[in-house]
Formats: sequence, C-alpha cells, structure tokens
Amino acid sequence: MKYVRFRDPAGSVRRGRLDDGTVQFGDESYEQDAVDVLPPCEPTKIVCVGLNYADHAAERDSELPDRPLLFLKTPNTVSAHGDTVTLPAGKERVDWEAELAVVIGEQCRNVDAEDAMDVVEGYTCLNDISNRDDQDTEQNWVRGKAFDNAAPMGPVVATPDEVPEDASIELRVNGETKQDSSIDQFIFSVPELIAEITTHLTLEAGDVISTGTPAGVGPLSDGDHVAVTIEGIGTLEHDVRASSR
Amino acid sequence: MKYVRFRDPAGSVRRGRLDDGTVQFGDESYEQDAVDVLPPCEPTKIVCVGLNYADHAAERDSELPDRPLLFLKTPNTVSAHGDTVTLPAGKERVDWEAELAVVIGEQCRNVDAEDAMDVVEGYTCLNDISNRDDQDTEQNWVRGKAFDNAAPMGPVVATPDEVPEDASIELRVNGETKQDSSIDQFIFSVPELIAEITTHLTLEAGDVISTGTPAGVGPLSDGDHVAVTIEGIGTLEHDVRASSR
Repeated sequence: MKYVRFRDPAGSVRRGRLDDGTVQFGDESYEQDAVDVLPPCEPTKIVCVGLNYADHAAERDSELPDRPLLFLKTPNTVSAHGDTVTLPAGKERVDWEAELAVVIGEQCRNVDAEDAMDVVEGYTCLNDISNRDDQDTEQNWVRGKAFDNAAPMGPVVATPDEVPEDASIELRVNGETKQDSSIDQFIFSVPELIAEITTHLTLEAGDVISTGTPAGVGPLSDGDHVAVTIEGIGTLEHDVRASSR
Repeated sequence: MKYVRFRDPAGSVRRGRLDDGTVQFGDESYEQDAVDVLPPCEPTKIVCVGLNYADHAAERDSELPDRPLLFLKTPNTVSAHGDTVTLPAGKERVDWEAELAVVIGEQCRNVDAEDAMDVVEGYTCLNDISNRDDQDTEQNWVRGKAFDNAAPMGPVVATPDEVPEDASIELRVNGETKQDSSIDQFIFSVPELIAEITTHLTLEAGDVISTGTPAGVGPLSDGDHVAVTIEGIGTLEHDVRASSR
C-alpha cells in the first residue's frame, strides 16, 4: 500500500491511498499528478544516520562506525515532492544525499530489534541536503544539516511489504545518474537503527529515521532538478534555486 | 508579566497570568502551588548554545568560540516544573546545566540583531541535562543531549521587561548552590544568537533558544532535587531518579 498526503481542492489536508496513479480518499479520487502533494508525514524530529553505506564512508574518508553515527534534522527542514528548495545563501558547497527514510507509526521507546518492524509505518524517499561549508567546521551539524528545506521527502509512504530488501536507490540531477546503489549495502539495518535510537529517544508517530546515503554525493546548483527513486516507493522530485540574498 | 501553562481541574490546557502567587485565566483563579504546571511552551525545536559563558568554557577546557556553538534538543526532551526526570540508563556521568531559555513569540527568519527582541515572547529557566558519556564520544550530541527528559523548563514565561540585563542565575542541588553567575557574562547576547540562528533556520512561535550555562556543572544522582533560579523569572524545580533498567 502507498499513501499520499495532499491538499484537496477545498484546501483540506487529506491522506489518500495511491493505486495505479489514482489517489483515493473517501468517495473522492484524484489523478496523482493533479493533487498538491504535501510532505508524507509531520515529523517532530528526523533522526539521521551518517556513514551507513560503506561506499559513502570511503568517499568522505571516514572509518566505518562501530555504532550508528546520529544527527538531527528539525521540522523546519521538511519539504515536499514538487517543491523548490532554496539553497542557503553564500555557501560554496551544498550537496545532495539520497536516502531511504523510515516513517514511524506509533510512539515508542526501548524497542528491541526483533520487534522493531512493528513500529514502522513505511518508507519514503528523502534528500538529506547538506551544507558542507558549515558541516565541516561545526561540532554539531546545525547550520550544516538543519537549515530550512534541507529535507525534501516523499512522494508517498510505502508499507514495508512494497520495498524489497535489496531495493535499488538512485539519485539523478537533471536526468544524469549521480547515486546508484542498493539498500542491502546498509551497515546498520532498519531494526538495528530503531533499537539503538529508542534506547535514548522516544519516537513519535510521524517521526522519521533517515538511513544514510550511498556513494556519489555532489554539489547542487541553481536550477537543478533532483529525482530520488527507490524501488517499491517511487520518485521524489524537487527543484533547486539559489538564494536571492 | 508572567504566564503559566497548566492543566485546569477539568483537564483542559490553559495559559494563565501569574500574579502574586495566583494564576488567572478567564474568570477563574487558582493558587500557583495547586495547579498542574506544564512546560511553558511546546517547542518544535530547542536550539542550544554551547560555551556561552567564559567560566564554563574554561572548566570544559575549551577555547572561546568565534561564533555561537549550536546544538539541538528535540521535543522529546521537554519536561515541566515539578516533574521527576529519569536519568538515561547505564551512564557514569549525567550533568546539570542551568540556562536562561528564550521563548520565541512568532515565526521568523533572517532577523537582524537590532530587531531581534521583537520576536522574543519572554524567558524561562531550563536545565540542559547532559549525558557526558556519550557527548564526549559522538560527533553530534544526540545521545548526549537529546534523550528523553533532558530539558526540564519553566515554571513561567516572563516577559523581557521582568528580567534585568545582569539577572543572577543560580542552580542548587538538594539545597546546595552549585552554579551562581549572571547573564551579563554571556559571550553572545540574546539578539546576536537570534540573528545567527535565523540566518540558517526558521524559528516558530514556542521554539526555544537555550543560551548556555555558567561554571559549576556537575553530576546528577538518584534522588536529587534540582532548583534553577533566574532573577525576574522564578524557580524551576524538578526531581531526579535513576533508570529502573
């Protein structure tokens, strides 16, 4: 099953089921391309994982972590499928990072790895946009990772049965493939991440865990069109523009 | 003016005005000590500042920063005046850190320092509880700073006119003074912090900036009673217990 959060013609926020290009809510149905797609959930926090693919760890010149490397993206980072993301002003390098994002389905704490899939509502695509100028000079990546629009997400939440264990993950910029890997390359699995994170933090329904990016990160520019495709979920697309400041 | 968020006898969440020990909402008034005090606001994020008092920078053996050192506390960290905070399990050292917290009054971005007080609703007391075991070993202080109950706040929001520019800030554990300083020791002022943070992040009404702690941090233990007093605001009190895990 796939779910889309959208604004209906009356302006009401709805969550419909997506089937063969048609979004269904109550008695109404809409063409997928005709609805105003919203972020698929409203996280109180996005807990992100660094260096969770061995190939990306190598390109960042980092050793493999012995426990998940965690960082945070705040609610102001959330953008939707179809939105135009403004790059932070005056930065040399702001990178794309395609990621599988886990949407949490219920409030939870101290979840064991073997029970962890019980608290997962599903998966979506996320671009963990990263301001390297600041990330490389600050202890905590607040300017580097938590700026406005730094987390375009969507277009749907797909239930876990839709997404194969070796699902492909691909990012294209202006039609050119930049990242191309599979989620079977994870260093820490989704259940391991949930167990580790909920040892420390309560997760809420709608919270997101973003599971790290594969090799192939690179800089975004004014006018870029970004597409993140994950097998079983679909394609998140967004535009990029430079800041006017 | 001072405002208290509380649950009234019917269970409704209200925000009343505090005057001489009496909380007023509509036609009703309550004794302050008789109401169930809630956190003074509902932040979507708490943006914290490290090393913003020179004396604390010295005790942590850190150089003075040339721009604010930022980190994040997530909504799951929020606790209220009168609550009992559970320490994270299995940690050697979890410290208190008394802080002046700024409550934001309206959604804002790119605020100049000279206009920054326009977006401030007021001030409250915050204990930035810190799990040093993990903070000292992780790049981003997620386990170290964003665990559940790591930010008791309250008891009121006091408008800026209530709080002198050299307000004293004091933390007592079981009646013994551990931190005793003044907010005139800030390295970065409240307007400077707002300007810097809103260069990168949109702040929402109810969001919090916690302005750093003075010298005198130390470890919490099971059974401790903590009191943070800031001149012009009042006293935040909470209990501490060890985890049962």
